[in-house]
Amino acid sequence: MDERVRQHAEILVDHCADVQRGDMVQITASKQAEDLVVALYEALGERGARPSLTWSLPKASRAYARAMDEDDYTTKAHDLAAIEETDVVFLVGGGPNAFETSDVPPAKSQAGSRAHQPILEERLGTRWVITTHPTAAGAQQAEMSTGAYEQFVYDAVNKDWAEQSEFQAQMVELLDPAESVRIVSGESTDLTMRVDGMQALNDDGDRNMPAGEVFTSPVPDSVEGEVYFDKPLMRQGNEIDGVSLTFEDGEVVDFAADQNEDVLESILDTDDGARRLGELGIGMNRDIDRFTYNMLFDEKMGDTVHLAVGAAIDECVPEDREFNDSAVHMDMIVDMSEDSFIEVDGEVVQRNGTFRFEDGFDTEQ
Amino acid sequence: MDERVRQHAEILVDHCADVQRGDMVQITASKQAEDLVVALYEALGERGARPSLTWSLPKASRAYARAMDEDDYTTKAHDLAAIEETDVVFLVGGGPNAFETSDVPPAKSQAGSRAHQPILEERLGTRWVITTHPTAAGAQQAEMSTGAYEQFVYDAVNKDWAEQSEFQAQMVELLDPAESVRIVSGESTDLTMRVDGMQALNDDGDRNMPAGEVFTSPVPDSVEGEVYFDKPLMRQGNEIDGVSLTFEDGEVVDFAADQNEDVLESILDTDDGARRLGELGIGMNRDIDRFTYNMLFDEKMGDTVHLAVGAAIDECVPEDREFNDSAVHMDMIVDMSEDSFIEVDGEVVQRNGTFRFEDGFDTEQ
Repeated sequence: MDERVRQHAEILVDHCADVQRGDMVQITASKQAEDLVVALYEALGERGARPSLTWSLPKASRAYARAMDEDDYTTKAHDLAAIEETDVVFLVGGGPNAFETSDVPPAKSQAGSRAHQPILEERLGTRWVITTHPTAAGAQQAEMSTGAYEQFVYDAVNKDWAEQSEFQAQMVELLDPAESVRIVSGESTDLTMRVDGMQALNDDGDRNMPAGEVFTSPVPDSVEGEVYFDKPLMRQGNEIDGVSLTFEDGEVVDFAADQNEDVLESILDTDDGARRLGELGIGMNRDIDRFTYNMLFDEKMGDTVHLAVGAAIDECVPEDREFNDSAVHMDMIVDMSEDSFIEVDGEVVQRNGTFRFEDGFDTEQ
Repeated sequence: MDERVRQHAEILVDHCADVQRGDMVQITASKQAEDLVVALYEALGERGARPSLTWSLPKASRAYARAMDEDDYTTKAHDLAAIEETDVVFLVGGGPNAFETSDVPPAKSQAGSRAHQPILEERLGTRWVITTHPTAAGAQQAEMSTGAYEQFVYDAVNKDWAEQSEFQAQMVELLDPAESVRIVSGESTDLTMRVDGMQALNDDGDRNMPAGEVFTSPVPDSVEGEVYFDKPLMRQGNEIDGVSLTFEDGEVVDFAADQNEDVLESILDTDDGARRLGELGIGMNRDIDRFTYNMLFDEKMGDTVHLAVGAAIDECVPEDREFNDSAVHMDMIVDMSEDSFIEVDGEVVQRNGTFRFEDGFDTEQ
């Protein structure tokens, strides 16, 4: 077995999920991720955990959804019962075709999501980890050779997470006590928001692998200004590109997209919370040095920030602060590598992708 | 999609499991069976059922078992919770390599089986169906081309089950009221058993697909004589071949095997019931016209009987009769095509594979 796959599995089992003897573990993966599944099974056997394996097969999901009546989507009682008895969940991305469900009617996808909501909520109570296995389809999406893509993934994943965590802690120290944040990029993005009272967190690998961001939740009504998202995102098998949003009193009052604007609109119309920001994240994983059209990686990229419309992050919002509730959580990315800065409480903390605590930060610009 | 795959899926969903709207369905399959899984998902969507999909990946199971400590096998709480909420189970055979778990220590396989027992028992309370998708590995096991093997499987599976059921009912009529059965084949097999009070059943597709046998459970202490099993069987990734057993007062008092005798011995030593017969089955699916080293098919073959050491069949044993209890149920096959006969209450009901109610039955031999 490729030693990089084994290392990935061990990071997932030990660093991310801290798997213990007797833990009930659920793995969900496509057949393209077989190598990682075998490595995970071996690591879980060594630690005396008890895994079960769900096969992610989008081709079957598509056939099912197209045949299914929208009204017949009920919560899967057996899946709900299983997740209630589960300690650790590994969701392994990397399928055969990112567009596999692109011809499922959106109303059915949404009916499926609604029915899945109780299972999702229960899953959030486990030690869950999302990761990706590098597949040929993932490489194609990234416009890379499979070999180069594999190395890209393992550079981002198989690293010294203690060291990375210390690097990110410097940003947490700036953001956690802050009252306000301003994001400026080029002519098209100038957004302000309050973050006072919210908790800024260090994503060093307990939920996402690769990890590598610092994130918080904005005060819901405080967001003002305009933002243009430079990179496309995949949603229900559709690519949404060229999104711009205008916020007033925290709410999206105007929006546009160059591609699949109707999908964007249907997401923003899901519920009230879907028109407000739930997350501000700052990418800090320097081994992610290019966009690969996989949000798990793109949002961790060094010279980016991402904003999510929809649900806030539980751990970021203390009980006495307003929590933005929504069935949606859609991340979108702003490229901060050029003609850009992040201000915290009126002071620039990042300019053109370089943090204040890094070499090369230009204080004078 | 291959129309034969679709027909197989529809027989499974409608004829075998009688799937209804809202049914919670579990499918377990290997990636080699993807086509059947997609067809099942489409059929289940049309009927408004709610499937989940477990990936059977023997390579991972092997890696896990070899890494696992024997004492750490506990019942998987999440799998148990799931099966308790499940209405219908489809177990799809046809993996990449029938020998994949052949180098797992038997003690670990047995520890795994014991831990799985509560889940198995719960599964037996669902509408469960075992079937096989024709794969290249299955064809190799059968020593056939993949194309010819596919046609063999679909001939056995995609048929008029009402007609087949009527054909088999003739044998049920003979066996159900019977007191005793004698199986004679060549010089090496002459076995008698009582079946009085037991119920003979018509396997026309509610549990196995292909179906095609008539079966009952012998009175546990009544089995006497010798039997030689002409065909090998797979057990825990091992091929056991050339098995002979000698019964006295229902118990195996002598045994031998040409290949993997130690595996046979460990199975017979599992518990008291593993040394007694739990099932007598008579194969009646004439489209299964050759051995393919897959018990699901071999045991339904027209010119065979099979006997299982271990657990009796629940439905065959009324409450006032002794039930042979065991963690084991291992089917083995006697070729009845030549120099053979089956007697029921002293009368020959099959000679050289031809039933009394079929053309060509020789009453005089």
